[in-house]
Amino acid sequence: MIIVMKPGSQESDVNEISRVLESLGLGVHISKGTERTIIGVIGDKRVLSDVPLELMPGVEKLVPIVESYKLAGKTFKPEASIVDVNGVKIGGKELVIMAGPCAVESREQILEAAVAVKKSGAQFLRGGAFKPRTSPYAFQGLEEEGLKLLNEAKELTGLLIISEVTSERAVEIADKYVDMFQIGARNVQNFQLLREVGRSGKPVLFKRGPSTTIDEWLNAAEYIMSEGNYNVVLCERGIRTFETATRNTLDISAVPVVKNSSHLPIIVDPSHAAGKAQYIAPLSKAAIAAGADGLIIEVHPNPRCALSDAAQQLTPQSFDDLCRDIGQLAGLLGREFRYGKGE
Amino acid sequence: MIIVMKPGSQESDVNEISRVLESLGLGVHISKGTERTIIGVIGDKRVLSDVPLELMPGVEKLVPIVESYKLAGKTFKPEASIVDVNGVKIGGKELVIMAGPCAVESREQILEAAVAVKKSGAQFLRGGAFKPRTSPYAFQGLEEEGLKLLNEAKELTGLLIISEVTSERAVEIADKYVDMFQIGARNVQNFQLLREVGRSGKPVLFKRGPSTTIDEWLNAAEYIMSEGNYNVVLCERGIRTFETATRNTLDISAVPVVKNSSHLPIIVDPSHAAGKAQYIAPLSKAAIAAGADGLIIEVHPNPRCALSDAAQQLTPQSFDDLCRDIGQLAGLLGREFRYGKGE
Amino acid sequence: MIIVMKPGSQESDVNEISRVLESLGLGVHISKGTERTIIGVIGDKRVLSDVPLELMPGVEKLVPIVESYKLAGKTFKPEASIVDVNGVKIGGKELVIMAGPCAVESREQILEAAVAVKKSGAQFLRGGAFKPRTSPYAFQGLEEEGLKLLNEAKELTGLLIISEVTSERAVEIADKYVDMFQIGARNVQNFQLLREVGRSGKPVLFKRGPSTTIDEWLNAAEYIMSEGNYNVVLCERGIRTFETATRNTLDISAVPVVKNSSHLPIIVDPSHAAGKAQYIAPLSKAAIAAGADGLIIEVHPNPRCALSDAAQQLTPQSFDDLCRDIGQLAGLLGREFRYGKGE
Amino acid sequence: MIIVMKPGSQESDVNEISRVLESLGLGVHISKGTERTIIGVIGDKRVLSDVPLELMPGVEKLVPIVESYKLAGKTFKPEASIVDVNGVKIGGKELVIMAGPCAVESREQILEAAVAVKKSGAQFLRGGAFKPRTSPYAFQGLEEEGLKLLNEAKELTGLLIISEVTSERAVEIADKYVDMFQIGARNVQNFQLLREVGRSGKPVLFKRGPSTTIDEWLNAAEYIMSEGNYNVVLCERGIRTFETATRNTLDISAVPVVKNSSHLPIIVDPSHAAGKAQYIAPLSKAAIAAGADGLIIEVHPNPRCALSDAAQQLTPQSFDDLCRDIGQLAGLLGREFRYGKGE
Repeated sequence: MIIVMKPGSQESDVNEISRVLESLGLGVHISKGTERTIIGVIGDKRVLSDVPLELMPGVEKLVPIVESYKLAGKTFKPEASIVDVNGVKIGGKELVIMAGPCAVESREQILEAAVAVKKSGAQFLRGGAFKPRTSPYAFQGLEEEGLKLLNEAKELTGLLIISEVTSERAVEIADKYVDMFQIGARNVQNFQLLREVGRSGKPVLFKRGPSTTIDEWLNAAEYIMSEGNYNVVLCERGIRTFETATRNTLDISAVPVVKNSSHLPIIVDPSHAAGKAQYIAPLSKAAIAAGADGLIIEVHPNPRCALSDAAQQLTPQSFDDLCRDIGQLAGLLGREFRYGKGE
Repeated sequence: MIIVMKPGSQESDVNEISRVLESLGLGVHISKGTERTIIGVIGDKRVLSDVPLELMPGVEKLVPIVESYKLAGKTFKPEASIVDVNGVKIGGKELVIMAGPCAVESREQILEAAVAVKKSGAQFLRGGAFKPRTSPYAFQGLEEEGLKLLNEAKELTGLLIISEVTSERAVEIADKYVDMFQIGARNVQNFQLLREVGRSGKPVLFKRGPSTTIDEWLNAAEYIMSEGNYNVVLCERGIRTFETATRNTLDISAVPVVKNSSHLPIIVDPSHAAGKAQYIAPLSKAAIAAGADGLIIEVHPNPRCALSDAAQQLTPQSFDDLCRDIGQLAGLLGREFRYGKGE
Repeated sequence: MIIVMKPGSQESDVNEISRVLESLGLGVHISKGTERTIIGVIGDKRVLSDVPLELMPGVEKLVPIVESYKLAGKTFKPEASIVDVNGVKIGGKELVIMAGPCAVESREQILEAAVAVKKSGAQFLRGGAFKPRTSPYAFQGLEEEGLKLLNEAKELTGLLIISEVTSERAVEIADKYVDMFQIGARNVQNFQLLREVGRSGKPVLFKRGPSTTIDEWLNAAEYIMSEGNYNVVLCERGIRTFETATRNTLDISAVPVVKNSSHLPIIVDPSHAAGKAQYIAPLSKAAIAAGADGLIIEVHPNPRCALSDAAQQLTPQSFDDLCRDIGQLAGLLGREFRYGKGE
Repeated sequence: MIIVMKPGSQESDVNEISRVLESLGLGVHISKGTERTIIGVIGDKRVLSDVPLELMPGVEKLVPIVESYKLAGKTFKPEASIVDVNGVKIGGKELVIMAGPCAVESREQILEAAVAVKKSGAQFLRGGAFKPRTSPYAFQGLEEEGLKLLNEAKELTGLLIISEVTSERAVEIADKYVDMFQIGARNVQNFQLLREVGRSGKPVLFKRGPSTTIDEWLNAAEYIMSEGNYNVVLCERGIRTFETATRNTLDISAVPVVKNSSHLPIIVDPSHAAGKAQYIAPLSKAAIAAGADGLIIEVHPNPRCALSDAAQQLTPQSFDDLCRDIGQLAGLLGREFRYGKGE
């Protein structure tokens, strides 16, 4: 960290800051420029997290040099991590596709969806049982009943199960049914919840929030990892901008940026980013071309009857077309995706 | 709601949609333009919240005409609401100021802060006991111990107590100690938590999220109100934009916009918006001039020793100067604030 | 267009509005809902562009139904446009790559860059002669001297020339030297300049502004097209958001959204979006996978000596590797790019 | 400036950078931390503006310490500047109000507006003669004819005249008629135009762009000032964010931030920020309370007949009410505004 002093700061101000830093075991390096004096702080800056240096006399601002997350960063672990979810490896050569309806609605719907997405090559079945909805008057999910139906679909197809958890109670219930927890965008800084899934040790798909920087997102991942759970897979799902032609703005650059800063795998959710089914295929291909380790896509056996987010769910046929394209793209990019392996 | 049909839509598409709407008890009004046919939907559109109209053949898009929240809106209750918190009325003629440290750190700190802010005229003591922090390595709050210290400060000064709750467990614990719950910006769409404080019936200060539109914020308030708790006070605290000179961008327009759309009181938090103590006084005056019903401000007896958000906490002296200015401004604007009434 | 009336509007208000609309030759369709009356306006709404309907008594708001641009829209021309620039067709089966240094700096630099990018398959040489720079103290371009050097490179390699114009004077000068004008992001709503390149009739590469919605961008394209110049190619180059890990946020969704709303070709500029050379290859592949008609990429024979935007310029070797990948990707997507055809 | 080296950088990399810096006459200060080596650069970094340091081997990133503008900054001139426009001082004790219609439409309209705003105390008459409009089909202004009408209004009332210039040609024409040029938000980085008004020497009202950071805005002001014209008054008019309840989001914090970084006066345009007449009064009071040196407000003798931006123009009566309130507020804040002095 660099401490930039104000133009008129005193020598005594610099001395006092040096004294505080040294008392905390940190090294100090002073550099006098033509307009400003700056102080370089040497050592583990975490001892400073509760010291209000910016209020000390003469201080203009603090400039961080090293990122504030540790466990999620490449400095901590330079090689890419592979998260193994009961045999399916995320972050390796194989692309992973998670697919299924926005919400579990009925036994018939989820089994039909499971059979369809399995056939096209998906490795995971997704389906919301606890649904966070903008309006309290909309369908809120089948809760445990929905999780039981997901489990039935798993027994039928062999697909792994991923479902969103929205509270500590939901974690407790879902723990019995799912292979991987999903933390949704609205809960990206619900730190109690992050700790809870951290303590569970179970793999977590961790979505970026709509107004979370990549740096804050990796810091939030640190809440899960600092509980000892390193099985974190990141998921870019669009950020909020001024553009309204799509539901969110897919930040495709987040894929290479995360690959550059973190060892964690990253997949992309084109459904929530686009908000419209017609844009899902081009955005999915773009994500894979940019280096993503997989996709999570909403597929509904009959989107016109869906109880939530109908506009952004693919039909099984469109999903199958997309998986075929992804299979071809994978080969070109040195990855693998066994299209239709489910048959 | 208006349903806009695609340029090439068929008469049969329009008929099918009409049939669905009428089967749900809604009225239908068809209008053929030169380029598009549009269908006006008449009646309570909440019966449509789970019907995927946008996927019916021939439909281009849906255009909402009436806002989706009810209880928080002026159509439901045209006159301004006054929220009474154990005798202090928020939303009436009197301006309400909530002040205190970002986090409760020690008995000495909170009592000193309480005496100081009381003296300047604040009606509420604020102080975080459950602290959501961006990094897991930073100070996370004293939890129940902190709430007990707040209560001691209340007994000493007569100030009302407000503190943030971040989980269902925190609501349960804090319920014994606080006069008003605070829901922080990160939890604006933590719907389980909103329901929980809704069920408690206790007044809630409900902060806007950094990327929440005013419309979504009022919809989220609906989660609290739909549990029967109408004692909601809104709090604008800055939104996330591309500008980095301030921590967030204070959306001062939210004050008149909320006054125009909702009957709920609204106060402003200049501390989190600015992120720097030097900007708090001008933003506070701006908020009151724009019509806010009060302020929530971070004040620390010794900011240089603060364990969190040090840069944005005022000293008791700066806070007193600000309260004096607010007192004068209040008179000019037809409001009241009894500066120094605590003495 | 739909006119939404206020809850308490009078029958006489509706009658007065109807009278005004009918006097302008427009049709009127009135629909009374349970909470609001709405008025559908039938006909060409351009006659309304200067009528302040939103101020008429009883009016709450206006809701546009049809987009406000005409010539740029698919309603005007449903099939995709192909822009022919002296024999190179943009928007057809073949992918088009424009490449070269950010700024023309010297004869040696531009000739070396031209030979290199030609070899890898680029069809256009880019190079800034008029440079808009954030700081007035930075290198501002060689102006006409730079254009002459571009022309020399054209004679040597046969590449077409594209260069940015920043004022009416620049248009006049550049007209003698370039095959295609570029309008940069900062001038997206410099309407005088748009009209000027419109009047020239020469093909225009029209970049999106950093805070321009797609709708506004197409409206701005209308300024060029309404002068009779339909040879417009759009270029997505990233928008400004709160994320700072990249220089701008590449709005990859703009590619399918534009393809859905407009008949104009669209290419992508990954260099300005990313701001860092290491992200250019993944973003380029993502753009092509999403359906873009081409790319414009900064390539410098020796980026370490570049006089502007050094960090985002590729070396000829990295550019060649990328072109090879694009060539393979093209085949898979049903497009063509003759990698290395320049040899 | 600080140069942050990559974790694995070599001693030779550091030596090479030092050599380059020293050859440019800069001082070098090397500091080795536990994870990174950083290099402090001492001297006037403007000699570096065209040196691609970020591409030198081993460099991770550059961190600016001192802002890049000079003439606009407080380091260059610590005391506040007062811009004298033919006798009216902007930035001193007196608040300055500029008012008038969005566009000059007719002799009757502009004279009526002038008389009205003069009466309420405005010192400047505003009125657009060159109108940049989003759609090419909307009214584009009366051009020189409009400027002549403004001049007639000046002779009648003694008000100073301000009007927007959108091109070099417009500067040339307007120079004969106006007391102060206005550069609109869309032209904030039209550097040719900025230079042109810089060379004219005439006072300039310089609006912030909708996606311009305060830092970029001050850098752009530098283009005007580096031509020797220091008579620049800044104008905050709202930035583009995700919120759509207002046309733009008024960044009220820009007022104290600019006061902290620059010596230039700053006024606020609540009309373009709000986009709705009903929000103009609260935002105007907020701006003055936050420390702005004045306001620019759209006033139309009959908004319902306005040819552009009708929804955001005040009636003379509403404007007069607002001026009365501003007069009272001024006194309380140690400023002056002689409400009604025009009578």
